[in-house]
Amino acid sequence: MTLKTIAVDAMGGDFGPSVTVPAALKILQNHKKLKLILVGDESTLKQMLDQQQASKVRNRIEIQHASEVVGMDEPPAQAVRRKRDSSMRVAVNLVKEGRADSCVSAGNTGALMATSHLVLRTLPGVDRPAIMASFPAVNGKEVHMLDLGANVDSSAKHLLQFAVMGSIAVSAIKGIKKPKVALLNVGEEEIKGNEQVKQTAQYLSSAKSINYKGYIEGDAIFKGVADVVVCDGFVGNVTLKAVEGATKLIAENLRDVISSGWFTKLCGFLALPIFKSLKGELDPGKRNGASFLGLQGVVVKSHGGADINAFACALEKAITEAEMDIPQHISEQVKEILDSFDSEDN
Amino acid sequence: MTLKTIAVDAMGGDFGPSVTVPAALKILQNHKKLKLILVGDESTLKQMLDQQQASKVRNRIEIQHASEVVGMDEPPAQAVRRKRDSSMRVAVNLVKEGRADSCVSAGNTGALMATSHLVLRTLPGVDRPAIMASFPAVNGKEVHMLDLGANVDSSAKHLLQFAVMGSIAVSAIKGIKKPKVALLNVGEEEIKGNEQVKQTAQYLSSAKSINYKGYIEGDAIFKGVADVVVCDGFVGNVTLKAVEGATKLIAENLRDVISSGWFTKLCGFLALPIFKSLKGELDPGKRNGASFLGLQGVVVKSHGGADINAFACALEKAITEAEMDIPQHISEQVKEILDSFDSEDN
Repeated sequence: MTLKTIAVDAMGGDFGPSVTVPAALKILQNHKKLKLILVGDESTLKQMLDQQQASKVRNRIEIQHASEVVGMDEPPAQAVRRKRDSSMRVAVNLVKEGRADSCVSAGNTGALMATSHLVLRTLPGVDRPAIMASFPAVNGKEVHMLDLGANVDSSAKHLLQFAVMGSIAVSAIKGIKKPKVALLNVGEEEIKGNEQVKQTAQYLSSAKSINYKGYIEGDAIFKGVADVVVCDGFVGNVTLKAVEGATKLIAENLRDVISSGWFTKLCGFLALPIFKSLKGELDPGKRNGASFLGLQGVVVKSHGGADINAFACALEKAITEAEMDIPQHISEQVKEILDSFDSEDN
Repeated sequence: MTLKTIAVDAMGGDFGPSVTVPAALKILQNHKKLKLILVGDESTLKQMLDQQQASKVRNRIEIQHASEVVGMDEPPAQAVRRKRDSSMRVAVNLVKEGRADSCVSAGNTGALMATSHLVLRTLPGVDRPAIMASFPAVNGKEVHMLDLGANVDSSAKHLLQFAVMGSIAVSAIKGIKKPKVALLNVGEEEIKGNEQVKQTAQYLSSAKSINYKGYIEGDAIFKGVADVVVCDGFVGNVTLKAVEGATKLIAENLRDVISSGWFTKLCGFLALPIFKSLKGELDPGKRNGASFLGLQGVVVKSHGGADINAFACALEKAITEAEMDIPQHISEQVKEILDSFDSEDN
């Protein structure tokens, strides 16, 4: 493997450099052929690195100064227009300029997508970039789903593009030759769904290079019946967040039950190994890192509230996607597949 | 309270009379001023009642023979067209004829909605009926959400109607004077969302009788910030099922972890009171029963896989909705609220 360079928006996320810098050091220790460019306030980052005693990997860290930070609630349009020297923008610029092979940010999703779209542009044949992340499924399986919120009014053509991009990316990342692709719907029968989904199903049924498995319902995401689940960004975003909310509620209720009395506290203490193991299996931080697919460059979005381990996980994804050169894979295959449909309904 | 009569599709659901009949008997013991009409194969139902030693409540049970059963996977259109004597259809007919105050079925959701729509018709002012059910939220709160799958392409006008119906129903059922109503969206900021959601937000902001609280994201469903969450049926259905799937995966993983060795088995045994208490709080069966709102009659849909306790819970909902006369409440208020918008965009 050749030396890869990852640009890190070191100021993004709820915790900024206190998470991104230790995560960066951790990743550099694990990857000997990796270079990181930490983007953000130079003096803050230098100070952090000094505190962290980073001497062993210090020669593989470059600091790229950026004078501004995009706020977590800042409107994307404003971030794009006014903050040209934000750590986020500069990190994406480094990918555009070829100085970095990919970039990672835990900043505001909308701003990161708008910035990435503007700076990197979409690949030929791709109308809209999409956000892909993974969910756990039975027997330790992993399911990738897209779009998770970049597009709120996806046409059948867009959904088809998401399916193609998701299939290509998952094939490259996971080494699955023909990933099973399913369309998220309100039923499994052919007559179910809205017009966009029905039309997409027709496209996918005739797309020979896609291993299309038909419709699945929401609960089947977690059954591992598909490797790639395709949906509109509105549906995907609400689903992702609802599942996060429900999981959090279960964890909170468990905590409440345990702390409700001395006996349950004792039981909870005795069952600690179980809860730890469960947490390990379901920990969303272990899968942290959403891929922005369809752009002329690799951008990975970390959860804003990611801790050091979770942010390191997002960095790992950015390394993998850079090594696999996902945009190149998509670029090679997407036009060919999509061209075959263009005669039908453009 | 006057005597209420509930029609029960005794053949519906995954388990048919083996669940519906014991649940019916249980409910009759709890409600002394209740009569049930069990709809289905007469000889089967008589035999079940004899086996269950129902003598104490037998005088409040009527059997209405129906010669057919709608299959759980039967296409709704086919069920409506061909099975005029199905237990489902006959149960809904009883509501139409005024012989029952409400009906409950654990059968095929699509067929039940199509049948109810055809037989009962919508209330004046309501274009489409919607499916409403409840989710648990923090601190033991309950959140009602609609539409959960009756409509896959809801316009802003439809979403407005769902908001009005949900608000009226939750107000009556839960005794909340002005339920907090929120719109499910991909962000909380005004600029977020698709056209339908944005237009609905405008409608709701100017609907004085609705206590509109703005947009919420998927995770906020479980935070109890709203009493009523409004969304398109595609989004609602996928969300409902995804949450079911994720919850099931967590339960399965917990079981796997516990049974993975003698030590974890011991820990699991010791922590049994915790798991039981947790199951009690999150048990979807405790909230079983989705309301079909907007029809000229009360129809409650039980989960197909409901056990006796869960089906009894759906029967309780049908009793409450009949006692509160939800269709009458909706009918009185919906036209007035919706008329004020008609001049704007019809």
